Order: sequence, then structure tokens, then C-alpha cells
Amino acid sequence: MTSVTVPAAEGRAVDVASGQRIRITTPRGHQAADFFAYNAADVSEWLSPMHTWVTTRSVKPRPGDQFLSRYRRPMLTIVEDTAAGCHDMLIAACDQKRYEQFGFEGHHRSCSENLAGAMQARGHVVAVTPQPVNFFTNTLVDPEGALLSPPNPVAPGAYVEMEALMDLICIVSSCPFDLKVEGWTINAPGGVSELEVSVA
Amino acid sequence: MTSVTVPAAEGRAVDVASGQRIRITTPRGHQAADFFAYNAADVSEWLSPMHTWVTTRSVKPRPGDQFLSRYRRPMLTIVEDTAAGCHDMLIAACDQKRYEQFGFEGHHRSCSENLAGAMQARGHVVAVTPQPVNFFTNTLVDPEGALLSPPNPVAPGAYVEMEALMDLICIVSSCPFDLKVEGWTINAPGGVSELEVSVA
Repeated sequence: MTSVTVPAAEGRAVDVASGQRIRITTPRGHQAADFFAYNAADVSEWLSPMHTWVTTRSVKPRPGDQFLSRYRRPMLTIVEDTAAGCHDMLIAACDQKRYEQFGFEGHHRSCSENLAGAMQARGHVVAVTPQPVNFFTNTLVDPEGALLSPPNPVAPGAYVEMEALMDLICIVSSCPFDLKVEGWTINAPGGVSELEVSVA
Repeated sequence: MTSVTVPAAEGRAVDVASGQRIRITTPRGHQAADFFAYNAADVSEWLSPMHTWVTTRSVKPRPGDQFLSRYRRPMLTIVEDTAAGCHDMLIAACDQKRYEQFGFEGHHRSCSENLAGAMQARGHVVAVTPQPVNFFTNTLVDPEGALLSPPNPVAPGAYVEMEALMDLICIVSSCPFDLKVEGWTINAPGGVSELEVSVA
């Protein structure tokens, strides 16, 4: 088994062979985990929520659902979820521009930068940041289509576990979002925290 | 003024200069219009629903909303909508694989192919099919996150009009989806029909 700690606001890549399982845990709870997956044999093929939800017909990932790539091929199956379905697939990965738009000055860590750095370390340039799956992230679409982000209720120790359906490079980013934005809560009020990733 | 008819199940590109308006009309009603927009000066910058809805906080486009690019820059403003908000930003562009997954055999026209062809005619290779805005497309997210696609209620002659905020190449595809899929209605029962596009 491989275990990796993703420090608060950082990102890490792990290899997950077909048939292996990857588990992502939020030890302190309430920590959004931006998740990206690439076909290890062809990184032009990446996990795509938009192609996934037209097949599962759910904008929320649920146990038994398969995540599809942008080529509509199965990449992973969700096998276990102790976060009661509190996951999001709608919020674009945060990036430097996002923080600037909220008024932040200077460099701010972001999930886009964490992804790019983790892939760069393996020799891959990320030209297009895929839409992530945001585990442990609380969003809701109301009947009029409004996208809401209520406070994050995920308990300490909650995890999701997935089985790989092809050889994958998976990237997990501890979302660095720490701004106080009215009606747009992402992480715990206490701040950004680490994630644990294990592959077996 | 430039006027272009997009024949049923085909796609067309039009140039829209900053400050100009583009109007897309479904003359017979009920016809999904997949819409893509690129910065004419840098086609690596395209309209991104995921970056749009985290800013508008609505998965439905509404008059006054700005469509943002994947670099989070404003590309277009919606100025008028006579389709009563019956638009979608969640369904990935259909492609050959999508039709095959529904059991269709042989080549089927698709919005991805229409986009690629329209851009190819201008010398641009589309390596990544962006998430489209699907005008005149009826989707709904229920409280549990289920993605529903009820019958298309858009009346003949309904249109949307947008103002460009930068020089754009805009692609409109008359969605070729014509399969009978339980609970997944896209176009009119009578079949796929043409769209009218005007730029002024």
C-alpha cells in the first residue's frame, strides 16, 4: 500500500493501476479535495464530470457510479463514501485569477497550480485544467438553477474510495480556498487542512 | 447585418466583433442550439460554463449574465431571451461515441463534429471540445442532484441575443440528437430543425 499525505493547500500525484483502489480522507473534516485523473498511457484522456453526469444523470457522484473520461470511457468506480454524498462536480478549479477576482493581492496557491505542479514533476504540461471532482465540497442547485455553497458539514475522518478501471495518474489537491466570501463557504472556518491518500 | 441559416444537424461559425450582437433563433421551436465561443485573437481562450456559473452562481444563463472564458474573462453578455430561460449548460456536446453508447450503428452527425468542422474551415484544430452552452435545451437538477431532461417546450421563433465583449468566433450547432431515449428528450418529436443566426 502507498500512503501519501497531501499537506494543506498543496497537491500530490499518485499512480493507481487498473484494479487498485484509491482512498481519499479528510482527517480533520471539512476539507475540499479537488480530484483529477488521467489515463497513464495517454494524458490527453482525463476524467470529465460533464461526460460523467450525462451518463449517471446525477451531478452528484454516488457509490456505484463510474467516472468517465472526456472520451466517454470508464476510469473509476466509486466503491465507498462515508461523507454522505457531500461532493461537488460543478465548481471549476480555483486559480490565481479567481483569488484576484475576490480582491486578493499577490500570489495565492490554487488547485490549478497544484495540478500543474504535480503533473510537471512527471514531465507533463497541463495546457487545459480539467473540471475537477471536488470531494468533501458542499454545493446545491436550487429549483431555479441557483448554485449554492453552504457551509461544509463533512466530519473528520470521512473518506471516499474508488477502484481504477484503467492505469491512472490521479492528482489530489487540498483546496487552498480560505477567503471569507458571503454565501460561498468551501472549507472549515478553522482553515485549510491536509488530506490523506492511500492506494492499495 | 450578417444572417446565416444553420441547416438541421449542421454547424456554422460566425465572426462577432466586440460590441456587436449575435442572435440565435429556433424558427420551428424546440431545437437545441449548441453554442461555442472563442477569442478570435487567441483560440486557446474559449467560453467556459464552469467558470461562468461560479461567478453568476447560476447553472442557467439569464439576461444580464456574462459568459466567462476559461481564463475568467467576460466574453459575452446575454441581453435578451424569449425562450423563458429554457437553456442548459450541463450537457456535454454530443459526439460519435455518445450515439454509439445509445446503440446507434454507423456514423452519426454530432455537435462535436460540427464544431470541429466549422473551426477546421478556419484553419483551427479543436483538440478539446469545450463544454457548450446549450440554448433551447430543457434540463433540470432536482434536490438530490439528479439531472433531468424533460420535453423541450421552446416555442417557434424563440431567440436569445448576446453582446460580444471581445472579438469572437462563435459556433452554432443544430444539435443532431434524434434518438428516442426514455426520459432524455432533447429536440422536438418531429425531428431536428434549422437555426437562424444573425450578427449586427
